[in-house]
Amino acid sequence: VGGGVAEILEKHHAIICSRAGVRIELTRALVRNKRRKRKGPAGDVALTTKVSDIVGADDIDIVVELMGGMEPALEYMTTALAAGQTVVTANKAIVAEHGAKLIKAASKAKRDVHFEAAVAGGIPIIRTLREALASDQVSQITGILNGTTNYIVEAMAKGRSYEEALSAAQELGFAEADPTLDVSGRDAADKLSILMGLSFGTTIKPSKIPTDGITKLTKEMMEDAADLGYSMKLLASAQRTEEGTIQAGVFPYFVPLGHELSAVPDAQNAIFVMSDSLGSTLYQGPGAGGLPTGSAVVADIIEAGRNVAGKSRGRLSIGVVRKGPKLAASGDAVCAWYLRLNVLEEPGVLASVTKVLADEGISLATVWQLPPVGPGAPVDIVMTTHETREGAMNKALRRISKLRTVCDAPKVVRIYDGSGASNR
Amino acid sequence: VGGGVAEILEKHHAIICSRAGVRIELTRALVRNKRRKRKGPAGDVALTTKVSDIVGADDIDIVVELMGGMEPALEYMTTALAAGQTVVTANKAIVAEHGAKLIKAASKAKRDVHFEAAVAGGIPIIRTLREALASDQVSQITGILNGTTNYIVEAMAKGRSYEEALSAAQELGFAEADPTLDVSGRDAADKLSILMGLSFGTTIKPSKIPTDGITKLTKEMMEDAADLGYSMKLLASAQRTEEGTIQAGVFPYFVPLGHELSAVPDAQNAIFVMSDSLGSTLYQGPGAGGLPTGSAVVADIIEAGRNVAGKSRGRLSIGVVRKGPKLAASGDAVCAWYLRLNVLEEPGVLASVTKVLADEGISLATVWQLPPVGPGAPVDIVMTTHETREGAMNKALRRISKLRTVCDAPKVVRIYDGSGASNR
Repeated sequence: VGGGVAEILEKHHAIICSRAGVRIELTRALVRNKRRKRKGPAGDVALTTKVSDIVGADDIDIVVELMGGMEPALEYMTTALAAGQTVVTANKAIVAEHGAKLIKAASKAKRDVHFEAAVAGGIPIIRTLREALASDQVSQITGILNGTTNYIVEAMAKGRSYEEALSAAQELGFAEADPTLDVSGRDAADKLSILMGLSFGTTIKPSKIPTDGITKLTKEMMEDAADLGYSMKLLASAQRTEEGTIQAGVFPYFVPLGHELSAVPDAQNAIFVMSDSLGSTLYQGPGAGGLPTGSAVVADIIEAGRNVAGKSRGRLSIGVVRKGPKLAASGDAVCAWYLRLNVLEEPGVLASVTKVLADEGISLATVWQLPPVGPGAPVDIVMTTHETREGAMNKALRRISKLRTVCDAPKVVRIYDGSGASNR
Repeated sequence: VGGGVAEILEKHHAIICSRAGVRIELTRALVRNKRRKRKGPAGDVALTTKVSDIVGADDIDIVVELMGGMEPALEYMTTALAAGQTVVTANKAIVAEHGAKLIKAASKAKRDVHFEAAVAGGIPIIRTLREALASDQVSQITGILNGTTNYIVEAMAKGRSYEEALSAAQELGFAEADPTLDVSGRDAADKLSILMGLSFGTTIKPSKIPTDGITKLTKEMMEDAADLGYSMKLLASAQRTEEGTIQAGVFPYFVPLGHELSAVPDAQNAIFVMSDSLGSTLYQGPGAGGLPTGSAVVADIIEAGRNVAGKSRGRLSIGVVRKGPKLAASGDAVCAWYLRLNVLEEPGVLASVTKVLADEGISLATVWQLPPVGPGAPVDIVMTTHETREGAMNKALRRISKLRTVCDAPKVVRIYDGSGASNR
């Protein structure tokens, strides 16, 4: 990202200065090793290995943190803010984990911390939540926040296995050699935590958000989704409940084919917002990549520059609401469900399964038994339910798993309702 | 809109003040008649019929113009700016016609003029172009900018006649009693002119933008669109050409069914932006209506309030680029075309038509002759072309119209390419 930012700052220097209303110069860059060969514009950038040449330096107005990781990046940023510098960061993990702390430090120092690039670099969602929706009340925010998993799930929908799709994503540079952060849903949970803070004023750590990734998805589940009129997507979703809490989670979902989120292609991100005044709005664009992320960082640098020039630093940190609602218990989440069971083919099996569901107050929408593969072989039953509390569903699943006639662990996927009305 | 703004300001007063970091009070409202009964919050708003109670008044920081029309609204706004007040307006026509003048007046007075509500109230596109895309270079901006026509065209796609669809839109309050501004495409051209100014730095009057509305669309054209895999949409589009000019226009288009703009429903708006760093991004939301527009006005008021509190007025007007490229000649626009001809059923007709097209260098993609309605009756030929300069197409159409065997004026619709590569 550092290289991308430097490239944009050099390539579009005149227009950037014109739009910021002030000369913006990249003067110093902190590096581990000054002698290492680098690609990209050298310009008049002085390389240094001394942090104090940048953080707290009198002649630097804006510190751009692109080093990643938790420490020392966090310490550098709080030190810079305390010294009266404006901070721009793309560090999703830090903003997710310590965003409130950073904003407080900025507010105290009458400076700003900008982090547009931390969530969906190609979509100006941070700006939109901070400014455009400032007078509005968000009731739901649901997004495809991880491009890697969106790419993999789309490839699986086209018939590839999980392993094949992951390899393809790695070859294209979408997925890391260790893809855990992406495929586990944790990357999306980090981003959701940031969006929740801006939408609802919560300070909920990503680790508290119920999260499941895409590693358990199978070819059969993808086919069932298509047969039933859905598209499989990893959604990160948060919404207000009637009790005033926030229901949040990151899970694979069946998304109805007509819904805007169902057709988001490739490694794109998309964010669907429901708010009191606007109703539903959608923001779609590239989620990652050097240029989109670099562009978001530079947009922040321009805004920071304008605020330096206009003597209006600290403007963004004014009036940040920070005593938001609590997270709802995950068992209280309500949605429709898809279930696929592998059962022995003998009389009464379906009856015993549906009895458990009925006991837990779960009402079925569709039931569909697949033809047996051979005589005596187990068969698959595919079911969808009407809206059901997650707690009831989990209880039913535990009971169903224990039935003698059920061969494998049930496969389950949530069904997205899209209206924002399904999670109450 | 005035009522909606007052309602939001009252209903969300605490959160608005908190987000602006300063108390925001609606104190005075200019009205024609103080005694007329009004709906909505009365609060402590003093009604006045004297402009000078508001415009130029010492105790008013922000003047919100929601009266509409050209004069005296424009004069009030320039007077307010000169007197050191910040202006928020939803007046699309004024910003389209005199935006550069207003921004200059604001810049001179070190104040700002905010106009998020002037284009697609429910989509923060002004903010996005001013800030998020500030470091980027926009190459194309294409939008569904008029909800009324989107509603009508969608209803026609479902089989209604133009008149039926228009009546339905009027009953639902989407369309005015006199719908000319909407259905002629002129409303969309006003908005496109504003977006072009922000995207490319142009100062092109809406009347200079080639514009055609939806009044000539027929049932057959809608059916052909569906049969050929397209959705009909009124698009307002502008893009950079290789010559450094801007190709712009408002026209009905066949939009490929997979493209994000093809599925925008009801009276929603959507804006598709292609830029160097981000690639393609999409913004979709409600285009009009009291609450979305009111919400955009209040977002502007909050930003204006923050800038008053932060002593950073004039910040937005810093560095506005205003010597942009020129409009390209409309004949130079390049796109694929759909044609429907009503011709006599006699030998050689198709040959004479295709000869004209070949003469003008137009290459056909598909040709499709419909079965005759009865013996001797004229038949319809449906054709699509490969990419063709508009000038060549117009010349061919003039020649085809003059052929003895062609009964009616040819029906033509542009085909949207979506990649931004089609208009060169």
